[in-house]
This record gives sequence, C-alpha cells and structure tokens, in this order.
Amino acid sequence: MLEQGLMINTSRLMKTINESANIGKLSRGGICRLALTDEDKEMRDLYIQWLENIGLQVSIDDFGNIYGRKEGKNPDAAPVLIGSHLDTQPEGGRYDGILGVLAGLEVLTALNESGVTTDRPIVLINFTNEEGSRFEPPILGAGGLAGHFDKEFVYSRTDREGKTFLNELKRIGYHGSEGNRIQNSHCYLELHIEQGPVLEHKGLDIGVVTGIQGMDWLEVKITGQSDHAGPTPMSMRKDALYVTSKIIQLLQDTVVSQNEEATVTIGRLAIKPNSINCVPGEVIFSVDVRHSDDSVKEQLCQTIIEKMSITAAAEKVSIEINKIWETSASRFSEELIDVISETSDELGYTSKKMISGAGHDSKYMNEITPTAMIFVPSVDGKSHCQEEFTSEEAIEKGANVLLNTVYKLANA
Amino acid sequence: MLEQGLMINTSRLMKTINESANIGKLSRGGICRLALTDEDKEMRDLYIQWLENIGLQVSIDDFGNIYGRKEGKNPDAAPVLIGSHLDTQPEGGRYDGILGVLAGLEVLTALNESGVTTDRPIVLINFTNEEGSRFEPPILGAGGLAGHFDKEFVYSRTDREGKTFLNELKRIGYHGSEGNRIQNSHCYLELHIEQGPVLEHKGLDIGVVTGIQGMDWLEVKITGQSDHAGPTPMSMRKDALYVTSKIIQLLQDTVVSQNEEATVTIGRLAIKPNSINCVPGEVIFSVDVRHSDDSVKEQLCQTIIEKMSITAAAEKVSIEINKIWETSASRFSEELIDVISETSDELGYTSKKMISGAGHDSKYMNEITPTAMIFVPSVDGKSHCQEEFTSEEAIEKGANVLLNTVYKLANA
Repeated sequence: MLEQGLMINTSRLMKTINESANIGKLSRGGICRLALTDEDKEMRDLYIQWLENIGLQVSIDDFGNIYGRKEGKNPDAAPVLIGSHLDTQPEGGRYDGILGVLAGLEVLTALNESGVTTDRPIVLINFTNEEGSRFEPPILGAGGLAGHFDKEFVYSRTDREGKTFLNELKRIGYHGSEGNRIQNSHCYLELHIEQGPVLEHKGLDIGVVTGIQGMDWLEVKITGQSDHAGPTPMSMRKDALYVTSKIIQLLQDTVVSQNEEATVTIGRLAIKPNSINCVPGEVIFSVDVRHSDDSVKEQLCQTIIEKMSITAAAEKVSIEINKIWETSASRFSEELIDVISETSDELGYTSKKMISGAGHDSKYMNEITPTAMIFVPSVDGKSHCQEEFTSEEAIEKGANVLLNTVYKLANA
Repeated sequence: MLEQGLMINTSRLMKTINESANIGKLSRGGICRLALTDEDKEMRDLYIQWLENIGLQVSIDDFGNIYGRKEGKNPDAAPVLIGSHLDTQPEGGRYDGILGVLAGLEVLTALNESGVTTDRPIVLINFTNEEGSRFEPPILGAGGLAGHFDKEFVYSRTDREGKTFLNELKRIGYHGSEGNRIQNSHCYLELHIEQGPVLEHKGLDIGVVTGIQGMDWLEVKITGQSDHAGPTPMSMRKDALYVTSKIIQLLQDTVVSQNEEATVTIGRLAIKPNSINCVPGEVIFSVDVRHSDDSVKEQLCQTIIEKMSITAAAEKVSIEINKIWETSASRFSEELIDVISETSDELGYTSKKMISGAGHDSKYMNEITPTAMIFVPSVDGKSHCQEEFTSEEAIEKGANVLLNTVYKLANA
C-alpha cells in the first residue's frame, strides 16, 4: 500500500538535471563528462553540496563511489540502496545514469520534506566509471564494490593517454577509504532510462526490469582473394565481402525466426583493401549476441558459429572466429520486481516486465544484494547521443515509482 | 606470313626486367615507383641509356612521354607505335606496364640484331603516369597525347602533398617539348599482363584483346538508424548494414544471372558508428559496374539503381546514389586483332579473343590511331601487388607475338 500523497517535486528534480547538464555541456544539449576528468570532479563537488544541503551523511570509498546516507529509525538495519552514475559517454545524453542518481536525491529530499523517517537507513550511491568509455571495461565502481573486479585490476585500468584509474582518482581528490565501502544492504534499486524503443512503442509508462541480457562478442575474419575488379570474372572471385553479406543475412534470419527476445548485431566491420576497383580480399567484423537466458545464448552462439563456418566453406573462403568477450545474464529479485510492479499499478501507471539489453551498475550490485531496476521511456529509443530524451512527465512517473518503492522496502 | 626465324632474346629481356625491378624495389619482389618521383627519374635515365645503346632517336614531349624511334626505309611513312608505362602502383608488381615497354625495347633490339629495317619507322613509347596512384585520374600521359585531357588539366593534377604534375615533371627534368608529340601513326600495339585469371584458368598462351570495358562508378549512402545493440529488438531496427548486405546479394545475383561478361564490385565500404555494440546507422559503399558494350552497361547500371532503391524503400531506410565516374567502352581495330590472332597461330601458340577489364594507355591511344593489345597470363590473376607474376615462357611467347606483329605492320 502507498503512503498517502508521497510524491516527488518534479520541477525541483528537473532543476538538478538541468544544472548537471551544464557541466561538460555540448552544443546540442548533450554532455561529455568522462569518469575522473575535471568535469567529473566539478559534478561530484556540486553533487556533494546537494547531499549535504539535505543533511545526508557523505562518505567516499576507495573506488571513488560516493554514498549519501539518510539515517533510519533503526540505524543498525541493513539499508536500502539506490543509485546509478553521473559520468557520461564522450557524446552522451543528459539522462543516462544521471536520472537515477538525481531522482534518488529527489526521493530523499521529498521524504525529508514530508517528515518521513523510514525504519531502515537509505543510502544513495553515485558509482564511478559506469560508462567505461574512458577506462575499460565499464561498471568499474560497482564491479569493484561487488568484488567482481579486484582492486588492483580496477586501479591499473588506463585511458588512451596511459593515465591510470588510481592516479586520476587521486588527482581529482576522490580516493576515499576501503572502510567506507557499504558493508551490508537490504536491496539495491536503480531508476534508468530504457535506452531502447520498446516502452515508447507500446505507449507504456514504466518498465519493470527483470534482469540483464547475457552477451557474447565474436570477432570474425573472412579471407578470400583480393583481385582487380575489371579483369576478374564474377565466377572466378573469392569476394570476402560477398560472403560476409551472405552471413549477415543468415544470422539475422536465424535470430529473428527462432528467438523473439534474442538480438544479433554486426556493429563493426572493416574491409581490405577497401579500394573502389578491387574485389575485397578480407573482411573483419564483430558479432554481438544477446539473450536473457545463458543457455539459450550459448546455443544460439554455437548455431551462429556453425552457420558461418558452413557458409565460408561453401564459398571456398577461409574463416577465423574468436570469442573476445562474454558476460552472463543477470536475473533480478522476484520480490523486488513484484513490489515495483505493484507500486506502479497503485500509482495508476501502465507498465510491463522487460529485460535490459544494456549493462548497468545493477548488474554487479545484483551479485551482492537483491536488485531490480525501473525503466522510463527513451524517445525514439535514442541514448549515448545528444538527442537522448525522456519527457518530464515520464521522469515524474519513474521517480514516483522509485520513491514509493523505496518507502515500502525501507519500512519492510 | 612470319619472317623466318625472327625471335626475341628471352634472357636479354629478363635482364632488363630484373634491372628495372631494382629501382624502387620492395622487400617481396615488387616495386614502388610512382610517377614523377625520384625513382621514376632514375628508371627513365637508365631507360634512355638503353634506347641510345641500340641507336634509337630519343625525344620527350610536354607530358614527359618518352619516344625511341627506329627509322624505317621510308622515314615519311606513318610509324608503328608500341609502348606502355614504367610507373607502378605504391605496392606494384614488376610486370604491369613495364613488360610492354621492355618487350618493345627487346623487339627493336632483335630487329637490329637481325639487320632488319622495316618500311615504316617504329616508335617505342613510355607513357607518363598510367597508374594514377600519385596523380589522378590514371592514363594522363597517353590521355594528354590523344587530346582526351587538356594540357592545363594534366599539368594541374596534384598529389596528396599538393605537388603539381607540372612542377614534378620539371623537377625530374622530363618536361619536354609539345613539338615532340607524335604527329601521325599507322597503329598502336601494347603487350601487357592480363591482370586477371582467365588465360591461366583456360591454359592459353595469348589473349588477343578486342577492347576495354566501359565502367560506371556509383557511390551509395544508406541511412537507417544507429541504436544500441542491446535494448533494440530486431523488429524495431533500421540497420543500414543489413540492408547493404541485401543489396550486395541482389547485385551479385542480377549480374551473374543476366550478363556473363558483366562485372559488379563493391570494393569500398565504411559503416557508422562502427562500434561493436551499436546497430549501424549509416553505410557508404562504392559500386563498380563494367561491360564491353556501353548500352548494356548503361542498362545494367539503371537496373542496379532501381533494385537498390526498391530494396531501401522496402526496408524503410533512405538511400542516396551518385554516379561519380564513367568511362565508355573501347573497341579495338578489327584489322589489328586479326593480325595478332594470325601471328599467334603461326607461332604455334594458343590464344583467345578477350576484353580487358582494366584501363590501359591503349584506351586513349585507340581514340587517335588503330589500336590493339596482346595479353599474357598472370599467375593466379594477381596484379597491383608484389606477388604479381608471369612466367618467363609466357613472356617469351607474348614478346614474340609482338615482334612478329610489329614486323608485319611496319612492312604493310
């Protein structure tokens, strides 16, 4: 049951979102605020003022994750965690990650304003380097906290200029203490934009996220023969691009026909010699395969590898296939999913359960505490671009679901 | 009828080919000798020594084309021209172009040695910048001589460093006189490697070249939508690479099924954003269409444009198609074709009439004088690469056909 009349202040939330968008501002409304840069520091400094303004207890751990704690009636109870990240892609939008953190701030502000103290403490977290566009892999702060990555691994990540995570963390003054890492927790909740077109397409307010897809990355090299375009009859060619085009068709057809939820993407592709009058002798391309069920994903990946190999053999070209990255699927807490769903219904919003195709801080938080996510629609499904947009109305609904879900869980 | 016992000296010819291969020599046997570079100058200087060693009268025109004239019994008769080019691709082979010039030198040397003076003069030409890899377009020297290109156009061509054709021609000391351009001619003959696999595949000695294919170059831009690979279901994508792969299949099928002699090549292709976890939103690619009959080529090109447009519309992506280059087909002299064919037969060699898919100096020479070409096999069809290879035996046969054809025509 909802606490009567517990609602966020939308204009106050939009004000912090707009102020955030001024730090690392790009010309078309987006943000460039890579992890551990001067812009990230400026945002963190301002953010800590905001946390302190509403009386939260601020601490920073050894990965630079920032915690803002609102005490509960029972300070020893495991806290409810909420959060996301304030860093962006090089040409990022103003909502990805940021919405989750600033909606969390608004949730705590609204609770304060209503004079509510929950049984459990509530801790708002801004995670370091979720995007991974400066330091790879992504989700380093949450992954470090969850013990998914070693401290040494995280610290030794380098950017393209050879600067390490640790040195940059120290440089901007956010190298906190290992003792500040959150020790115990009741659960973790994250509000995020969908970054895909499904909610908008179906005209729904809220996505109740049941997990994150697993992902396999393959790198494929097709070697045929590079010949002159003119003197080489079609029948005597070994055109690596022609074979690749067959494979692209085949993969799309395989995935679309067999698995409604699966995706396969050929996102990167380079051809050689890449000259207008030469038959392409070599093509290297990536294959990104995703599904929410690891065994289905594994089977699909195997099918894809077999079909590619058979096609290459039939066309008399050679093929090399390497798996270059793999992450397993995450399944979120059924209990939390139910609470979010019910809360959304009680608020009179339309919703659907859905899988996240992208990774989030929730991915690794799910390894240490019951976790779930709330999605709000992305206009045109756009994200990681300046055009990323979610309407004020959609943000209000998402933040209200977060507020009322947190209220329930912090009193459970 | 053959002149009894008129044969080239193969080892002498191979010696000049090997000496040429030392100028701009690459590690795996190839040559980098771009037009009007220091290497080109070094080759020209040595070549002129060779011309003078056998008593030829040397002159240089205002495009840097080098003429070596062996006088005839009748000095006023229109000369028989033979030639090709000594410049190479950046990673070129040791036969492309070079064979035609040095076999021509060997033909004149062999005639001298046999004490033969033909009725007509014979003029051997080394054309400037056939390859076009430094100064675009290709075939500038022959095109300038034939009046296909203006002198101002040729002179103002610039390389990637902004250096002009004229300044580089002057710098290497090969800016000759307009008065030295060849004024009249009986015909032009060019021996060249096939640069394709057909002769080798069919086990034949000689290609009697009946013309050069016409060529259209299209640049195509497909614009779909770039989305995240994860959160975007297959059914909601506008994947520009997927549509491109459909088009590649379609073009290949159209051309292969309808026109045995036609070729279509997608040689250059770039995708955006070219990121492993992004659906490609844009693909730009080239289409190279060739046929020996301009009306068939035009029809084929029209069909290709229509099919691409229909496919793009069906897939709900936008398409832009621009024709960026076009050359018409060349038909060589029937009379010369017959003489070459007959000469090859008389020498006991196997041959076939064939079309050249690549451009050559003959293309523009054909605009001012009866022209034909003699092809010898390229192992594995390779050219414009260091692996380019034609056997000594094949070279001997080609040069003997050239020698005996020239003898006949210069006495006709």
